[in-house]
Amino acid sequence: MTTTWVEGAAGSLFDIDNLPYGVFSRPGEEPRVGVRIGDHVLDLAPVAELGDPASELAAAWRTPSLNAFMAMGGEWWRTARGWIVEVLGDEVHRARTQPHLVPLADVSLHLPVEVADYVDFYASEYHASNVGRIFRPGQEPLLPNWKHLPVGYHGRAGTVVGSGTPVVRPQGQRKAPTEEVPSFGPSRRLDIEAELGFVVGSGSELGSPVAHDAFPDHVFGVVGLNDWSARDIQAWEYVPLGPFLGKSFATSVSHWVTPLQALGAAWTELPGQDPTPLPYLGPGEAKGLDIDVEVVLNGEVVSRPPYRTMYWSPAQMLAHMTVNGASLRTGDLYASGTISGTEPDQRGSFLELSWGGKEPFGAEHWEGGRTFLEDGDEVVLRYTAPGTGGGRIALGEVVGRIEPAR
Amino acid sequence: MTTTWVEGAAGSLFDIDNLPYGVFSRPGEEPRVGVRIGDHVLDLAPVAELGDPASELAAAWRTPSLNAFMAMGGEWWRTARGWIVEVLGDEVHRARTQPHLVPLADVSLHLPVEVADYVDFYASEYHASNVGRIFRPGQEPLLPNWKHLPVGYHGRAGTVVGSGTPVVRPQGQRKAPTEEVPSFGPSRRLDIEAELGFVVGSGSELGSPVAHDAFPDHVFGVVGLNDWSARDIQAWEYVPLGPFLGKSFATSVSHWVTPLQALGAAWTELPGQDPTPLPYLGPGEAKGLDIDVEVVLNGEVVSRPPYRTMYWSPAQMLAHMTVNGASLRTGDLYASGTISGTEPDQRGSFLELSWGGKEPFGAEHWEGGRTFLEDGDEVVLRYTAPGTGGGRIALGEVVGRIEPAR
Repeated sequence: MTTTWVEGAAGSLFDIDNLPYGVFSRPGEEPRVGVRIGDHVLDLAPVAELGDPASELAAAWRTPSLNAFMAMGGEWWRTARGWIVEVLGDEVHRARTQPHLVPLADVSLHLPVEVADYVDFYASEYHASNVGRIFRPGQEPLLPNWKHLPVGYHGRAGTVVGSGTPVVRPQGQRKAPTEEVPSFGPSRRLDIEAELGFVVGSGSELGSPVAHDAFPDHVFGVVGLNDWSARDIQAWEYVPLGPFLGKSFATSVSHWVTPLQALGAAWTELPGQDPTPLPYLGPGEAKGLDIDVEVVLNGEVVSRPPYRTMYWSPAQMLAHMTVNGASLRTGDLYASGTISGTEPDQRGSFLELSWGGKEPFGAEHWEGGRTFLEDGDEVVLRYTAPGTGGGRIALGEVVGRIEPAR
Repeated sequence: MTTTWVEGAAGSLFDIDNLPYGVFSRPGEEPRVGVRIGDHVLDLAPVAELGDPASELAAAWRTPSLNAFMAMGGEWWRTARGWIVEVLGDEVHRARTQPHLVPLADVSLHLPVEVADYVDFYASEYHASNVGRIFRPGQEPLLPNWKHLPVGYHGRAGTVVGSGTPVVRPQGQRKAPTEEVPSFGPSRRLDIEAELGFVVGSGSELGSPVAHDAFPDHVFGVVGLNDWSARDIQAWEYVPLGPFLGKSFATSVSHWVTPLQALGAAWTELPGQDPTPLPYLGPGEAKGLDIDVEVVLNGEVVSRPPYRTMYWSPAQMLAHMTVNGASLRTGDLYASGTISGTEPDQRGSFLELSWGGKEPFGAEHWEGGRTFLEDGDEVVLRYTAPGTGGGRIALGEVVGRIEPAR
């Protein structure tokens, strides 16, 4: 593995085999694209302007989102990464590059992607089964379509926000099963959903499905994602057209987009699919990702969902989303749905951790335990994966603090 | 009422009390904003550059969508319309304006809005009841939430296309109730949904609901809209998260956006709401729109849905969509859902017109009648409303022809 001359980076979770992209600014400067190495951001555009690589990259990196760079396509993504590894790996580039390494502590980080369409899937068998058991006790937990297709729906792209953006408790209509009529007020069952997001870099034509094996040509990278959910609003509104206001108030994503190239060592076998999916979903060839997730509530780890337990693969979700001819655009974001494993301490939502609010969790940290989110709560989602250098890499974390309803 | 010097416009459906905005181009030229009068498009930017009004308008009108103009806000929308009425109404402006009137026959029309988020409601009681009766015979046709809130969901913004764009028959998973397992192939139940779309011109802040009476500050105008639907794909996929691929392959909108100012005479009382909605939905103050719709299949009118029969008002849909704090962006589009009246010949979908495919319609035009869309079919949606000048105005029509699956 290449080593880096950047001090403090070697052996860290942001070593030279990671190199996630983000959008940063220093006070008084315009946001632009950078890459993270250790505890620094490399300001890409001025380094690119010093000579190689092509000036197209420098122009794309001077913009306030990753979209222009992503739209250049897969060959440019590979060219760019090769050049960055060269610049940060070879001492010969150190003198001219070091002035453009900015300490993380000196920058603001921004939403990295201008989101086009946002789709949320429901790809964890254990999450979907838990939710089925909680909401429809005594019935078959998975609905008949669940193992035939990756169930998904469109969310609100305009309320995808960067990590750290405060989340205002939503208001809306709620009706408990015991109530006669709905009432209006702040959500009483505000929740998280720990997910992984996939960022589309390269679009496709309307009317032309994207095959499952074209996944690396279209997907640029991954983000951490918290799909905040108001369970009481959702439960009342969602029939028959699905979740709407119970989700659309905020979806938080990490500041860092980890390119697929950094996840080369993270691909793993799926747990297994039975029945065999239809051919357009590429059964047998589909791979999962071995990513560990931590859900941290007010500083305490309350769950460790394992992404490797997901039923549907990222490439299958992409193939399904476009099989009807729907086009992709640069900036499209699709998320996995809540990641939950087989064990109680691997559940990716408070709905599941507290089993519908009936079994408080975390009594070892908080007297009486916890159920749903309270005002002032801070949730951090952390993600790590095997790196191509033999160690581990961190994906971008997702932070959000709950503010009272306005 | 002001009269216009533009020949052929007075007394037409595109008289000076209409003036819808669109985006047009002549061969070899860049698309830009125009306004329709009679059978001409006024090329707005060069006329604005001749002197008044402000140069900001001319700059916004030189762009290939209405978004820049809409983002300027309600005061500018009023200023612009006042100036256009003056220019097209007063002979004194004729000599310098006439060179910028382009015959419609000489231009191409484009998708008028860069769509941010797309939301589709379900606001017709008769449509929702019909669908309930068809899909859940013997049960209560409306679900318990339906009269408490305008049910809606997010659709795919990236596949909103301009009128005239061919619609390729989607492929996907379908499973009839009589089949054991799903099969893959072209949709066998391809349908239309005749709707009205509302275009958001002025955005709002995340965390701040938009009150129902702020509707005219945020909504710029309306479009005709056909929410193409593959009923077999939809029926299999939609539980529990709502429609996805059954809708996301294409949504067609008219080339013309009719500004709210042109609809001043079209507001009417709602049919009535019982129970009284919660206060944030402004019960009692909500108004509907008296717009007549025609559904034309291969040249024959097959239905005349009356928009005035809609249960939920446009302002209520807007208030509901944002009550959880979801922000609006310039270019957001929300649609009414299928418009269906009380009578069989007022239904806005083929699903209803053919009662789930069991009762073919249009036998007076086609031997044996019709159920769902066939390859080569052309559907035109036409809309008219009372104009402020005492006559009627036309909204933009929506045309689509079905191409075979690829």
